[in-house]
Amino acid sequence: MLEELKERVYKANMELPEKGLILYTWGNVSGIDREKGLIVIKPSGVEYDVMKASDMVVVDMDGRVVEGSLNPSSDTATHIELYKAFEEVGGIVHTHSTWATIWSQSGRDIKAYGTTHADYFYGPIPCTRKMTAEEIEGEYEKETGRVIVETYRERNLNPLYVPGVLVNSHGPFTWGKSPEEAVHNSVVLEEIGRMAASMEMFNENTKSMQQELLDKHFLRKHGANAYYGQKK
Amino acid sequence: MLEELKERVYKANMELPEKGLILYTWGNVSGIDREKGLIVIKPSGVEYDVMKASDMVVVDMDGRVVEGSLNPSSDTATHIELYKAFEEVGGIVHTHSTWATIWSQSGRDIKAYGTTHADYFYGPIPCTRKMTAEEIEGEYEKETGRVIVETYRERNLNPLYVPGVLVNSHGPFTWGKSPEEAVHNSVVLEEIGRMAASMEMFNENTKSMQQELLDKHFLRKHGANAYYGQKK
Amino acid sequence: MLEELKERVYKANMELPEKGLILYTWGNVSGIDREKGLIVIKPSGVEYDVMKASDMVVVDMDGRVVEGSLNPSSDTATHIELYKAFEEVGGIVHTHSTWATIWSQSGRDIKAYGTTHADYFYGPIPCTRKMTAEEIEGEYEKETGRVIVETYRERNLNPLYVPGVLVNSHGPFTWGKSPEEAVHNSVVLEEIGRMAASMEMFNENTKSMQQELLDKHFLRKHGANAYYGQKK
Amino acid sequence: MLEELKERVYKANMELPEKGLILYTWGNVSGIDREKGLIVIKPSGVEYDVMKASDMVVVDMDGRVVEGSLNPSSDTATHIELYKAFEEVGGIVHTHSTWATIWSQSGRDIKAYGTTHADYFYGPIPCTRKMTAEEIEGEYEKETGRVIVETYRERNLNPLYVPGVLVNSHGPFTWGKSPEEAVHNSVVLEEIGRMAASMEMFNENTKSMQQELLDKHFLRKHGANAYYGQKK
Repeated sequence: MLEELKERVYKANMELPEKGLILYTWGNVSGIDREKGLIVIKPSGVEYDVMKASDMVVVDMDGRVVEGSLNPSSDTATHIELYKAFEEVGGIVHTHSTWATIWSQSGRDIKAYGTTHADYFYGPIPCTRKMTAEEIEGEYEKETGRVIVETYRERNLNPLYVPGVLVNSHGPFTWGKSPEEAVHNSVVLEEIGRMAASMEMFNENTKSMQQELLDKHFLRKHGANAYYGQKK
Repeated sequence: MLEELKERVYKANMELPEKGLILYTWGNVSGIDREKGLIVIKPSGVEYDVMKASDMVVVDMDGRVVEGSLNPSSDTATHIELYKAFEEVGGIVHTHSTWATIWSQSGRDIKAYGTTHADYFYGPIPCTRKMTAEEIEGEYEKETGRVIVETYRERNLNPLYVPGVLVNSHGPFTWGKSPEEAVHNSVVLEEIGRMAASMEMFNENTKSMQQELLDKHFLRKHGANAYYGQKK
Repeated sequence: MLEELKERVYKANMELPEKGLILYTWGNVSGIDREKGLIVIKPSGVEYDVMKASDMVVVDMDGRVVEGSLNPSSDTATHIELYKAFEEVGGIVHTHSTWATIWSQSGRDIKAYGTTHADYFYGPIPCTRKMTAEEIEGEYEKETGRVIVETYRERNLNPLYVPGVLVNSHGPFTWGKSPEEAVHNSVVLEEIGRMAASMEMFNENTKSMQQELLDKHFLRKHGANAYYGQKK
Repeated sequence: MLEELKERVYKANMELPEKGLILYTWGNVSGIDREKGLIVIKPSGVEYDVMKASDMVVVDMDGRVVEGSLNPSSDTATHIELYKAFEEVGGIVHTHSTWATIWSQSGRDIKAYGTTHADYFYGPIPCTRKMTAEEIEGEYEKETGRVIVETYRERNLNPLYVPGVLVNSHGPFTWGKSPEEAVHNSVVLEEIGRMAASMEMFNENTKSMQQELLDKHFLRKHGANAYYGQKK
């Protein structure tokens, strides 16, 4: 069942330690088959060096395990909320990567300071509000997804134009049209976060970049008039 | 004698350089056989690339060498004090890992800033008080253990809920139910310390995370109602 | 056509990920054949692990593709402006390497703080002014080159004595007599940027080094009376 | 001539890039044969990946090349001054390692903040005064050695108790009884410098450690009553 997607989600998960984004089992990647309405996700707490593609768990949009003998990631309910709300998203990643997590712990957005940021994120990378005690003590993982969605709705953000978020006091979620793209955006967010944090450490002037330059860089890679890379 | 424990303690010691926690011989791991009342510990000042499992030294709870031709770690007396006071602990690690040592040198606790911390440490990671001249000039290594134990007693901390400490002006000790878990906690402490220090470098607001979120994350992984990972 | 230069430019491009200067395709190296008036440059957006020497694109000084089936780097027009203005330059590199980019985002020059800097850069490493909306919305990549050239003209800088620049809110360009030297200078700029930024993070006194020492170090390696290295 | 010492000095030089202390040719190690009054040192500006033990240059105490076809390191005169003044020293290292160089550029001593420091350096790691224009424009490399020696004389420091120095606006020199020990101390200085700098970045209280603890740690590893390591 969904063997190809399992293989891709498995490989995307294996990229997390390879790219230095996680220690131990501190991350998870999922992918979705929109036609079947099924999600493939990493099992919870399984070591990467023994994990196999066949360990990937298939769940439906209500979080019920459809196939697989292991528990799905404890963050599955967060992934589901994001897939429900962000209809163009095909893959989601959660990590505790160092710099993105530092930003989450600071409770602040990452401002767009330069073209590295602008090549991928069309404006600040938002940090969610703190969750309420009720949200934390209730369906916590589902509420985590809801607070992310609320952030995008309230700020009127296009999830594919801002393909990553900082969950307050927690860590990042990133996404993309595919699991592979979601991992790519996770690597990029980590580097952008490292640059922005380090910049603030020794500069008093921490103004965002010019809007014109943000537009130029994002739109030369994304959207109808993109001209970066090879014709496809 | 205790061949299996020696093998495990040896492997746990070898993990320290592999995980980037030490330079040269700047660390040591021990394990305890509670039934026999014997501790297996790394020899003092032996290079990791020539060390063998059979070099591990067996000492009793008074620090007397029971087996082994090498001197035990100079920190042996500290380990013994911790094993005596923390009865559920099965393995102990000492390193001078970069960020944990930086925190020790700052003489401050590491506040709980996010869920990465909360997944492993149930509250701040304590820094011990400075030792007195008498303690330093007396049975220094034993007194180091005593000041750690004092810290846990005075703050009423459960050693398995806060499985690591910062010795003031020195470096970290971590522990766990086994030598392997103690090393795992040492890796985690280093990453938490790096995140917390870096966060403080560019943020004015350095308030601890919400208590509800700390509770949620620690208790979903630890304690009676844990639901992270696979059923065991 | 230009097979040897293509091979060299290819190898110089491959050095960027090897030296840790780039993630993904975030960089490009070119080389010039001054006699033929032709530039060899990396194709746009091609993954490094599949790129071959034969993928290098040959363009003329007007940016027209003379040979090659792929699009040249989107930064080609910047390279051309630099080759036109800096006549002794034989190779150019653009990256988003971490510390040089952080400095670009800070919008400030890197002051000469020590001999590591002075061994390669004869004075501050300049950061360009912000580009105007007209420049950004017009021939952006060409204007990027022009603003670099303007910086060197206005400050009366010798491009071979200051073989690298920080483009404001963007990232570094470096150059040299050859593509290999340009990459070397890119590695050096990254390390100098890291040292200078880190130094400013914990010091109030951030005065430049003495002029005499700057002179001594630059001139013992460069110019008529150099005595560093082996006779050639 | 001095084949064994050449082999050792060569290997000690090769350790510099292996330990991450240098980029390109930014360092040099020498060793001395006190009986013969001859120094073996790395040649100037030779790439590490082609350097051989037979490339090591033998010079006498006046800096004259006694054997070898290559120019000796441009820092040879500094090494000679140190060997002349510090009679127990058997090996010397110069690098531009990142954190030690950052401290040199800051122009400040590294205070003793913890036991990692105290295990190797008995007090602050000194930074030399700025050199005068006359010193820089005269016999610069020799004067560099002289200003180091002046620092130790004026502060009444034992070179083997403080086996490394920061040359103002330049970088570190370290030494030891042998070339191998000098490299070891260079690795240690880099780590101590990283810890101390990072600590100052996020702490207001930057007081040195207690003298008693400094005494305890240095003297349990060094001097007549040392008890760290194995009996020799």
